Amino acid sequence: MITRRKLFSGAAALIGASSLARRIAGGAQLMTSPSPGATNYHPVVTPNGTTLPWVMKGSVKEFHLIAEPVKREFAPGMMVNCWGYNGQTPGPTIEAVEGDRVRILVTNKLAEPTSVHWHGILTPNGMDGVGGLTQKHIPPGATYAYEFTLRQNGVQMYHPHSDEMVQMAMGMEGFFVIHPRDGYPAPVDRHFLIFLQEWAIEPGTFTPNPNVMVDCNIFTFNSRVWPGTDPLIVRQSDRVRVGFANLSMDGHPIHFHGHRWWLVETDGGPIPKTAWVPQTTIDVPPGTTRTVEFVADNPGDWPLHCHKNHHAMNAMSHAISNLIGVNQKEVAQKLGKLVPGYMAMGETGMHEMSEMSGMSGPRNTLPMMSGTGPFGPIAMGGMFTILKVREGITTYDDPGWYQHPPGSVAGPAAT
Amino acid sequence: MITRRKLFSGAAALIGASSLARRIAGGAQLMTSPSPGATNYHPVVTPNGTTLPWVMKGSVKEFHLIAEPVKREFAPGMMVNCWGYNGQTPGPTIEAVEGDRVRILVTNKLAEPTSVHWHGILTPNGMDGVGGLTQKHIPPGATYAYEFTLRQNGVQMYHPHSDEMVQMAMGMEGFFVIHPRDGYPAPVDRHFLIFLQEWAIEPGTFTPNPNVMVDCNIFTFNSRVWPGTDPLIVRQSDRVRVGFANLSMDGHPIHFHGHRWWLVETDGGPIPKTAWVPQTTIDVPPGTTRTVEFVADNPGDWPLHCHKNHHAMNAMSHAISNLIGVNQKEVAQKLGKLVPGYMAMGETGMHEMSEMSGMSGPRNTLPMMSGTGPFGPIAMGGMFTILKVREGITTYDDPGWYQHPPGSVAGPAAT
Amino acid sequence: MITRRKLFSGAAALIGASSLARRIAGGAQLMTSPSPGATNYHPVVTPNGTTLPWVMKGSVKEFHLIAEPVKREFAPGMMVNCWGYNGQTPGPTIEAVEGDRVRILVTNKLAEPTSVHWHGILTPNGMDGVGGLTQKHIPPGATYAYEFTLRQNGVQMYHPHSDEMVQMAMGMEGFFVIHPRDGYPAPVDRHFLIFLQEWAIEPGTFTPNPNVMVDCNIFTFNSRVWPGTDPLIVRQSDRVRVGFANLSMDGHPIHFHGHRWWLVETDGGPIPKTAWVPQTTIDVPPGTTRTVEFVADNPGDWPLHCHKNHHAMNAMSHAISNLIGVNQKEVAQKLGKLVPGYMAMGETGMHEMSEMSGMSGPRNTLPMMSGTGPFGPIAMGGMFTILKVREGITTYDDPGWYQHPPGSVAGPAAT
Repeated sequence: MITRRKLFSGAAALIGASSLARRIAGGAQLMTSPSPGATNYHPVVTPNGTTLPWVMKGSVKEFHLIAEPVKREFAPGMMVNCWGYNGQTPGPTIEAVEGDRVRILVTNKLAEPTSVHWHGILTPNGMDGVGGLTQKHIPPGATYAYEFTLRQNGVQMYHPHSDEMVQMAMGMEGFFVIHPRDGYPAPVDRHFLIFLQEWAIEPGTFTPNPNVMVDCNIFTFNSRVWPGTDPLIVRQSDRVRVGFANLSMDGHPIHFHGHRWWLVETDGGPIPKTAWVPQTTIDVPPGTTRTVEFVADNPGDWPLHCHKNHHAMNAMSHAISNLIGVNQKEVAQKLGKLVPGYMAMGETGMHEMSEMSGMSGPRNTLPMMSGTGPFGPIAMGGMFTILKVREGITTYDDPGWYQHPPGSVAGPAAT
Repeated sequence: MITRRKLFSGAAALIGASSLARRIAGGAQLMTSPSPGATNYHPVVTPNGTTLPWVMKGSVKEFHLIAEPVKREFAPGMMVNCWGYNGQTPGPTIEAVEGDRVRILVTNKLAEPTSVHWHGILTPNGMDGVGGLTQKHIPPGATYAYEFTLRQNGVQMYHPHSDEMVQMAMGMEGFFVIHPRDGYPAPVDRHFLIFLQEWAIEPGTFTPNPNVMVDCNIFTFNSRVWPGTDPLIVRQSDRVRVGFANLSMDGHPIHFHGHRWWLVETDGGPIPKTAWVPQTTIDVPPGTTRTVEFVADNPGDWPLHCHKNHHAMNAMSHAISNLIGVNQKEVAQKLGKLVPGYMAMGETGMHEMSEMSGMSGPRNTLPMMSGTGPFGPIAMGGMFTILKVREGITTYDDPGWYQHPPGSVAGPAAT
Repeated sequence: MITRRKLFSGAAALIGASSLARRIAGGAQLMTSPSPGATNYHPVVTPNGTTLPWVMKGSVKEFHLIAEPVKREFAPGMMVNCWGYNGQTPGPTIEAVEGDRVRILVTNKLAEPTSVHWHGILTPNGMDGVGGLTQKHIPPGATYAYEFTLRQNGVQMYHPHSDEMVQMAMGMEGFFVIHPRDGYPAPVDRHFLIFLQEWAIEPGTFTPNPNVMVDCNIFTFNSRVWPGTDPLIVRQSDRVRVGFANLSMDGHPIHFHGHRWWLVETDGGPIPKTAWVPQTTIDVPPGTTRTVEFVADNPGDWPLHCHKNHHAMNAMSHAISNLIGVNQKEVAQKLGKLVPGYMAMGETGMHEMSEMSGMSGPRNTLPMMSGTGPFGPIAMGGMFTILKVREGITTYDDPGWYQHPPGSVAGPAAT
């Protein structure tokens, strides 16, 4: 049986790793004003995203969110007309410390009213951001101010509570991280944040359709799909937190390879240690955050992906005819000329798809199963990224593919 | 980090609140015979529902359920042909105490056989209610008797185990609450029960379609939609339990604003305190109950809703064309005259929908996004209600909208 | 409140049951070589499945998996063209002991490349089985070798990480059980394993369609549907574990009748006892395993089924017209002659379906609601089986239907 002691062994040796993380993360801090709160944390990393700068106004940290239409490249060749904040979807991550007094200005540059709800944060009722119930909707062109004191810690979210079904389906959402005033129970070296998202974007079109309820076709990490997702780089023995958030219609069970972790936090805050459960796949229900923690003790390149198999693939029409066992190459070539958007699946499975010539997908769709790894094609294309665990690295720049020790890779059996 | 001690501080001051709850809840007890069991509990409240009276027959509490077709108003203007119990869906709540001997008579006034399964309750095999396996199906017109001793406590369910896919999709289900013989670990002032339900009712029709598996379009709390859902009224500092049950095809993640709570119970019974997890959104899987507990320490009007965004909206066809970015007002008016049931979405989002003239929905559908709050329209219409936390109230009657302290509401930023 | 002490009382009396289980399970051990590891466990039972034999090569347990097309009878009259391992879907269960050195040869007899990922198992990176990333894809005709030491225990899975969306939808998956070197905290008498699966097989066809994402129509336990699912036979007072695995697109909430259990393990390993939660329905998310444990203290025949109601029914088109309240017998007979695959639902519900004459379903579909119990038809037909708890049995052969003590079965009320 794995015990916390065993899983987290090596914690004492992390001081070096911590200072490495601190040194590297220093760059992120340069874009922000000095924090009046605790400093015993490493700034979070939002892969393919950014952290929102603030300014001090007296004793208040002031942030400024701008709700607006956003063009987002989900992958090379696929641009999407989204809505978001400050030119981004998800919006920039708000990062603060327990005890901080924060003011968030929200400017509405959409063509319809909006509001911002601070999901999971214990605010006074008038700051809860529910349009019509706790405040007036923010009209187009206006700037509203929210102000409250952070009396908790954890990974939370912000999102509209005004025409929310549409506005969230268009990409309006972001992280709101509150670090504990007294530091984490064990120092965290790397702290990543990934927003899980679903979109209904008909092949050949550019705008998500918020009316679709159960048959979305694009699934993203921070509005990107693999191989366009930033890898998560950690040093061997780093203590790592990964926080997930989900405002889509489906739960997303995110599987880590090569490591087991503990579920340490929800949007309700830190979980007491007696209630920690070890897992390798964290199911993140809609309307929640989940944070997992582990020590990266297993070097290599490890997939980290949604385990709903379609969600790690993407961009496929779910109404394709089933052609397993049917010889279709000639058919596909002919159909491809007649129907520009025609997509086929292979007679023997999907592997052969890339071999089909004379076929091209509709415009503005994702290349399917397009990534390539050190050993050939990696047949994925959606909610998928790679956790790279390396011994002795001195920066968190991408170290390239893992170099396996000789004889440690599965291959042809000796005969 | 939030601790149980911190979250539940103020418990010592609840004596007054408890006696208030007891006084008010006394009305509910008048409709029932005196309980031979423990009395150190407050009767549960089933919003928009009722509790089933019983009679004592010797040392046995005897209840009587009548399975029958039921007409239920989901919202003004929308009546649905359901099946339920005693004229209701969900059926009336059965409330008893650990150690009670209970007898439940079940009369079948449906046109087909039925049975009743006591979901989660540890009965002898012959009382388990599985038609064909543990008993004969109850034929139309017959009355069967179930009798067993309650040797556990918790929030459970009753539902048919006979043509169950159809009978549950039509609304046959109810709560079965068993209070602990020795009282709750901490006295509970308010105890609410909400059944989570999905329905497939094609716009313009009146009868749920049980064949629909994944694309339901109506989502209800106790067979009602907001703004027709009763608010949950609590006094500040009340210790509150909310029990949820779900027999639909989807999990429903129910989010509370303004409070964090602990998951304290499932249909398997009370969770030992070391395993309690704090959350703000409780995902309730199909075939389960979940009970959360918190002290209502944050005054105001707080939404409590399913966080699958479509489920808090309702009554929308999921096949509507995506018109974001398309000027459609003229089109909508013309189409509305040709196609009576035509529903459009707005060019800039959904907010503008209420402005469109010349359009009317199909008969017997819900008004969408129809509720209005103190600050304007609240764009919701499904699994949504409001938790009203008030200081110093002396009844649990609806106190109206919350009056915010001056200066505590988000508004235009100072320039 | 139920305590572990109460639920698990009688553990001391289990020695006899244990030796019974050991004696019976001996048969299974005969098909395998002697284990060099711990022997203080009972071999697992995979209902409707098998355990994979191994051979010792020096100090290494060597297993051999053959990936290949498989014909599987889901139920009498319904054969499906699947892909699996060693002629089976799910593939045979791999069973080993913590500390074992294992080698698994994988021969690819499919027409496309494959690979095997050891889901949840902590292997060196090159043995993780991710085609393209950690190894080359195994080409058709080749045999690859995986080798690693088991440094954990628990119920894990194996499945392809090469064209995985297709290969898993076709049935490629299996259990990988690692028993603890030092035995279980409390000796387990019966240990069952059930793989939860979804399939999209259009009525009248024979091959699953992997493109279908959200509207599967066949739901199975170990690729079988009730009444074709093996019952789970246990002796009263046996300590029972049931492990579930899920690689489908949906969570499956599996409900047990007559018993409460504790969630004791995930694919991340054993859950510390302080974090155990009692339940009666275990929701198994995609990409996870869940193991529950209980003492079988309630004699009888107890359903154990998915509580998504459609999943326990199966083989129904979800696009059937809603005919509740419509007299359709004549219509159905006429349509049945014109449209061979026409399926109707009853005017009063589904119970009357079996009465309709002149109707036959399409070829190669499941008989719906076809099982019969001691008290009449049991209207189920999918993810459903029966846990049979019997006092004093001396074998785990099917004991037939439970004989209820006189007067203990629900029946007509005294008038």
